[in-house]
Amino acid sequence: MYIIAIYDVGSERCGKMLKLCRRYLNWIQNSVFEGELTEVQLKQLILEAKEIMVMDYDSFIIFKNRNKNWLEKEVIGEEKADIGQFL
Amino acid sequence: MYIIAIYDVGSERCGKMLKLCRRYLNWIQNSVFEGELTEVQLKQLILEAKEIMVMDYDSFIIFKNRNKNWLEKEVIGEEKADIGQFL
Repeated sequence: MYIIAIYDVGSERCGKMLKLCRRYLNWIQNSVFEGELTEVQLKQLILEAKEIMVMDYDSFIIFKNRNKNWLEKEVIGEEKADIGQFL
Repeated sequence: MYIIAIYDVGSERCGKMLKLCRRYLNWIQNSVFEGELTEVQLKQLILEAKEIMVMDYDSFIIFKNRNKNWLEKEVIGEEKADIGQFL
């Protein structure tokens, strides 16, 4: 399953969410990640995210697509994904 | 065409990008927007974004999907979209 995940959390939880998402997905921009996950991996990611998040303040949006080819990505401006690998 | 648009720009350009994206799309979280656009509208949005952006610093990612039903959205935590209408 192709996943796009975007978090919006309090700044004190940003580091933990970044670390968590990086374990499962590829960083593409700021708090945006993409990648292929199985149903089980996705459930695990959500479970771990819920442990970090303050549920009535933070949010974590996940777009799921069964086929990556159905979605086209266009990046305008600076492609930041590569930098992410060195952070 | 169903669009997800996410910007990551210098803080001094956030307001302008927010205003621009709101004219074309629905705000769902932080710097994330979704909505239906025609090819022409999307081109116009990108053109206007480029006028705001500093191209070697900012980035604007657009995911395009011909059919909204191919994509499933899950929000964990606080659904912020409604608040956005009052900002």
